[in-house]
Amino acid sequence: MTRQSRVHVRVVSPITTRGFRDVGVLKTLEYDGLTVSGSQIDVGPGSIESEFEIALSAPDTIARIIEAEREGVDAVVIDCMADPALRAAREAVRIPVLGPCQAGMHVAAMLGHRFSVLTVMRRLRAQFENAAALYGVTSRLASVRHLEIPVLELESDMAATLDVLAREARIAIEADGAEAVVFGCTGLLGCASALRERLLAEGFDIPVIDPIPNAINIAAALVRGGLSHSALSYPKPPRKNLPGYDRLNDLLFPGN
Amino acid sequence: MTRQSRVHVRVVSPITTRGFRDVGVLKTLEYDGLTVSGSQIDVGPGSIESEFEIALSAPDTIARIIEAEREGVDAVVIDCMADPALRAAREAVRIPVLGPCQAGMHVAAMLGHRFSVLTVMRRLRAQFENAAALYGVTSRLASVRHLEIPVLELESDMAATLDVLAREARIAIEADGAEAVVFGCTGLLGCASALRERLLAEGFDIPVIDPIPNAINIAAALVRGGLSHSALSYPKPPRKNLPGYDRLNDLLFPGN
Amino acid sequence: MTRQSRVHVRVVSPITTRGFRDVGVLKTLEYDGLTVSGSQIDVGPGSIESEFEIALSAPDTIARIIEAEREGVDAVVIDCMADPALRAAREAVRIPVLGPCQAGMHVAAMLGHRFSVLTVMRRLRAQFENAAALYGVTSRLASVRHLEIPVLELESDMAATLDVLAREARIAIEADGAEAVVFGCTGLLGCASALRERLLAEGFDIPVIDPIPNAINIAAALVRGGLSHSALSYPKPPRKNLPGYDRLNDLLFPGN
Amino acid sequence: MTRQSRVHVRVVSPITTRGFRDVGVLKTLEYDGLTVSGSQIDVGPGSIESEFEIALSAPDTIARIIEAEREGVDAVVIDCMADPALRAAREAVRIPVLGPCQAGMHVAAMLGHRFSVLTVMRRLRAQFENAAALYGVTSRLASVRHLEIPVLELESDMAATLDVLAREARIAIEADGAEAVVFGCTGLLGCASALRERLLAEGFDIPVIDPIPNAINIAAALVRGGLSHSALSYPKPPRKNLPGYDRLNDLLFPGN
Amino acid sequence: MTRQSRVHVRVVSPITTRGFRDVGVLKTLEYDGLTVSGSQIDVGPGSIESEFEIALSAPDTIARIIEAEREGVDAVVIDCMADPALRAAREAVRIPVLGPCQAGMHVAAMLGHRFSVLTVMRRLRAQFENAAALYGVTSRLASVRHLEIPVLELESDMAATLDVLAREARIAIEADGAEAVVFGCTGLLGCASALRERLLAEGFDIPVIDPIPNAINIAAALVRGGLSHSALSYPKPPRKNLPGYDRLNDLLFPGN
Amino acid sequence: MTRQSRVHVRVVSPITTRGFRDVGVLKTLEYDGLTVSGSQIDVGPGSIESEFEIALSAPDTIARIIEAEREGVDAVVIDCMADPALRAAREAVRIPVLGPCQAGMHVAAMLGHRFSVLTVMRRLRAQFENAAALYGVTSRLASVRHLEIPVLELESDMAATLDVLAREARIAIEADGAEAVVFGCTGLLGCASALRERLLAEGFDIPVIDPIPNAINIAAALVRGGLSHSALSYPKPPRKNLPGYDRLNDLLFPGN
Repeated sequence: MTRQSRVHVRVVSPITTRGFRDVGVLKTLEYDGLTVSGSQIDVGPGSIESEFEIALSAPDTIARIIEAEREGVDAVVIDCMADPALRAAREAVRIPVLGPCQAGMHVAAMLGHRFSVLTVMRRLRAQFENAAALYGVTSRLASVRHLEIPVLELESDMAATLDVLAREARIAIEADGAEAVVFGCTGLLGCASALRERLLAEGFDIPVIDPIPNAINIAAALVRGGLSHSALSYPKPPRKNLPGYDRLNDLLFPGN
Repeated sequence: MTRQSRVHVRVVSPITTRGFRDVGVLKTLEYDGLTVSGSQIDVGPGSIESEFEIALSAPDTIARIIEAEREGVDAVVIDCMADPALRAAREAVRIPVLGPCQAGMHVAAMLGHRFSVLTVMRRLRAQFENAAALYGVTSRLASVRHLEIPVLELESDMAATLDVLAREARIAIEADGAEAVVFGCTGLLGCASALRERLLAEGFDIPVIDPIPNAINIAAALVRGGLSHSALSYPKPPRKNLPGYDRLNDLLFPGN
Repeated sequence: MTRQSRVHVRVVSPITTRGFRDVGVLKTLEYDGLTVSGSQIDVGPGSIESEFEIALSAPDTIARIIEAEREGVDAVVIDCMADPALRAAREAVRIPVLGPCQAGMHVAAMLGHRFSVLTVMRRLRAQFENAAALYGVTSRLASVRHLEIPVLELESDMAATLDVLAREARIAIEADGAEAVVFGCTGLLGCASALRERLLAEGFDIPVIDPIPNAINIAAALVRGGLSHSALSYPKPPRKNLPGYDRLNDLLFPGN
Repeated sequence: MTRQSRVHVRVVSPITTRGFRDVGVLKTLEYDGLTVSGSQIDVGPGSIESEFEIALSAPDTIARIIEAEREGVDAVVIDCMADPALRAAREAVRIPVLGPCQAGMHVAAMLGHRFSVLTVMRRLRAQFENAAALYGVTSRLASVRHLEIPVLELESDMAATLDVLAREARIAIEADGAEAVVFGCTGLLGCASALRERLLAEGFDIPVIDPIPNAINIAAALVRGGLSHSALSYPKPPRKNLPGYDRLNDLLFPGN
Repeated sequence: MTRQSRVHVRVVSPITTRGFRDVGVLKTLEYDGLTVSGSQIDVGPGSIESEFEIALSAPDTIARIIEAEREGVDAVVIDCMADPALRAAREAVRIPVLGPCQAGMHVAAMLGHRFSVLTVMRRLRAQFENAAALYGVTSRLASVRHLEIPVLELESDMAATLDVLAREARIAIEADGAEAVVFGCTGLLGCASALRERLLAEGFDIPVIDPIPNAINIAAALVRGGLSHSALSYPKPPRKNLPGYDRLNDLLFPGN
Repeated sequence: MTRQSRVHVRVVSPITTRGFRDVGVLKTLEYDGLTVSGSQIDVGPGSIESEFEIALSAPDTIARIIEAEREGVDAVVIDCMADPALRAAREAVRIPVLGPCQAGMHVAAMLGHRFSVLTVMRRLRAQFENAAALYGVTSRLASVRHLEIPVLELESDMAATLDVLAREARIAIEADGAEAVVFGCTGLLGCASALRERLLAEGFDIPVIDPIPNAINIAAALVRGGLSHSALSYPKPPRKNLPGYDRLNDLLFPGN
């Protein structure tokens, strides 16, 4: 078990739109002993709202994660609630790789009897139910509720976004039995405190999980504990021909 | 409901190794009223034995499937038991897209009380258990057993492959409670009859599901019934910037 | 694996009311390479709306299915969503026997994230939830909704039936999260296209599964693939005294 | 809630073999305040070892149960671990009808962390796993083990039967994690004490549930508590034509 | 298997408020062959509405149960729907110890397709969902509904309590799919008949399970059958230092 | 969200044996920004190996946790894999309270496909399976294996303990499909590195979760993220008479 002085977590953005995730925001998540840095893919979708875009984001996300390990980073968080490339990237590196959805769902399951996911669009519902099944927490998922606001418009009217968040959280609590909520879009980063205040004012003292800060903190906890994902669950891929992905292959098998 | 005279099913190979899937083999799966054709990706892994390779195979597989729909094909079967790109490709087209793992597991669940998957390597076990969870048939999965033979070596000693298949099937039946088996690798195409004969000779009259022929036949059945996947579960992705994937975007949104 | 030129599927009606299932309707389900024929029980209920009637329909249904196999038919579909006698009949024959409920639920689970069953009366709800549990697809069942119309009155006012179907489908989609629907009564045969058009017009492009045509097509697919149910799951009953069922015993053990 | 002085439970044997269930045995299950009587079907299988025989036993079993209610009996237990006709018979009467499998599994789940079923033949395994799913106790079922002895031969060498029972119980405890056992055949009636003594001698102090005595006692408990099955789950069948079952219809709708 | 003439069941009240459970009420639950007696803790909460109070009620409840066994009582029922100390007490004695929640849920699952729990306050919902998970009947639990009345006020306006019970039962039936109900508070003892009459008058003929009478009757059934909990699931604790609980230790290991 | 400079985690030992948990060991778990302190109960069992002892440990453990919050501690970890008093203590305080079993199981589920628990005695198996059910991770639990060594003897022959640990871990991996392990006894604190080295040497690169360090690190992560358990799941108990627990009541409702 390592007792290292500082932990360095890299947040990898699996979308190509520049400026969506302000690095300054990541810096506000640091504290004594924790460094947070960011990187971003060059090849892939402008944003992720579909399985199609998840698929296209994966190859370059894996490359960024291999690079992070090469640079000596201690752990990686993928900056998207679809956890794109999570399993593939874990095969490629030995430092912990966390998906904010997986980490958020497990923390929610620890803190409340049941939790709801508040996401942006109805089409993502199946995705979150599938995630809960894969992560083994289906029995803790109360519901998936959506705001019907596209990812890239979340910040254009923050007050309106917050109103809808509060309304859906209330329905999740009263109709679906939720006793904790997880944001279903990393684009909501930073709204957790505001939503929690609103809910508290209505008498609902429940955890509101902001998935990126949460995943960063859990990643740091794993590093502190000397833990990473199982190489039996995520064994290294065999070296083979990868036409069209030579650079990724070189990254994975350097010096070969 | 259409009563069309012929059904055309395209088998898309998500690996770049040439000659692994002989088109002649696909032709033997045809019958009166059914045409089977094949296509293959150019960009992606030589074979698929990891989540990493699944991720790399997806983008070009989606392209091949969009092209198949453009050509007037009636349904597509993805030629790999990892069902790579299944959900993403369904978002991109309206003709039925089938994964041999999904179709094989559901047919096995219909024909036997429980089924086992016989695959090539231990590392694929988590993948099949995850698939069963996503497809909703976990309670029907008796076990995942492996031959410890890499995909590309399956055919080098067919008699040996068959011996190991028979041994693992027997253990699945006697120790795990399997009452049907599904091949967990499409590289075993064509071994089903031989394995079934062996098991019959030992007194085990159980279905041995060869996933590619099975998926083709189920695909044809869906076409005959006028059925395809739900556009509510698999809505079309929004048009947006896809740096590095311009051609795929053009395929998906032609004339834009 | 057989590549036979034509497949012959027998639809066995487990009710004694004459004329309920017009053989002409079955003929419309044929296509090049597929023959569909029908038979019906003489002893049993006029229609099936209870577990009591399911029980009474079973013995003669088994007899009809043994006769079908004796006549050289390739596969049998039982014409009732309660799948009466399904397991018992499978023990009696080696040709595939399909229940429209089992086949419909598995196909629905393949095509949509979750499905709802639209049936005739509230009392059938437990029956469909039990079926989903037995068939292993509970996690895919969004809800069971009913029209509150008895089976034999479904066709008296087709427009009204369709209105209620559309309303319940809409609630299933919006309130229960259904993304596919299966008819929960074979008396609705032929309404699928009309309902699908209605839903499409409202923006819901989802599969509407008509269980009898679907089961016929899946049965043909199994025959094409040389597959039938497991004799390990459905072993032949031992010959023994069956007071009151001598004819059935003779059918099962001819020449004995 | 009734406080009646005596409770009368009828044990209905759903097989046609005479003398298999000695009425004298039933009398040994009586105690102050409890009367136990028996009846038997005339039409149906000589014994029940298959789904086919379950189906054939159902119609006359329902008749015997309606007669029991007509005679003023307080509750009925069906004398077979397949619980044949359980749901159908509950629709036909308002006195409690218990299946020994259902009652035995629920009592086992109350008394031990997990239980195993010890039955006669391998072919019954799927049946018990299906029963556990229908009764909602799948998570409590450790395993189904079998003696490979046909029902009608159980009593021919009681010492041998007991040896095999003890061996399988031990394996269930040590390998499958069972902490209670239920006999999976009512033909084992009376062996519970002997098996329990054996297991105690080996240090395993676990409940051995003899399903018929257990179901009788639970039935009496329900009568004492004024409880019966739900008419919402088991509504009375509508009166309709039942060709070939006129007598059963007359029994169900007397005076019509 | 014992055929003893009388069965003596002790009802242990795990709360310190005197007079809440009138012993006279317990006497009305007796019948020929059944004696019911009561005892109560001295150390612990005045009533139980939280996990905190469950924890505080446990030590003295265990003491009362050991005393009951010492006195020759045949079985014990814990008088609280939280089943406090159930598992701990079973380790301490070999006579059957029943929790009314466990017994009520299993009986409900036997009598109806699904059941709802009607309890006093929202905060108990997680507790009952957890209980269903531990007892293995999650799939049978339709919902947990509450009256929003504290335990000690239930009897102050019985008519009002009954009105709310009837309203919540109706919603459970119509909206949640319940086909049986279990009271989620032993303070409702005696209301079952009245609620059942109300529901019958509205056309809902369903079992209303009064958990204390039910647990007493099931306990008597277990005693009649010679059954108790598994010593493998509930092994006796080892003797060791128990600072602050010397008397309990002496009770458990007398003469040591 | 707080960005406080230091986090203070209190480890509360729910057993009365002095010297079992050396405070010096807790200090080795500190790092820059993290303070770890300890406290211990005075009333309760010398060690915890049964449900009986869990029950007796709860009241004073709750008192210690309330005191910790009163002292300004940021989070509490209960020092026992039975997570005694976890739910009750959460009702009593608003700072995060973690059970090492709950935190260990969720982290194991994040890092490996399935995990096994390695505990001290067979009798704890039901306890861990129940815990997995309550925490919602049953589908991730591969097995519970035991060393058959009592808690207080674990350290007497560390080499022997390690040998048995390694053997059971190997069986868990090869026979049960485990791909991560969690210690099922906090008495194994400090053995994780040694076991992991052994397994690595045998080619098994899997996470070995030491539950106390892990729970401390996760607790710190929650404090960093401003998260605590839901007050909707764990509402404060109402003030009421608690005969025999006056001091606990005063602690919970000070100044009343």
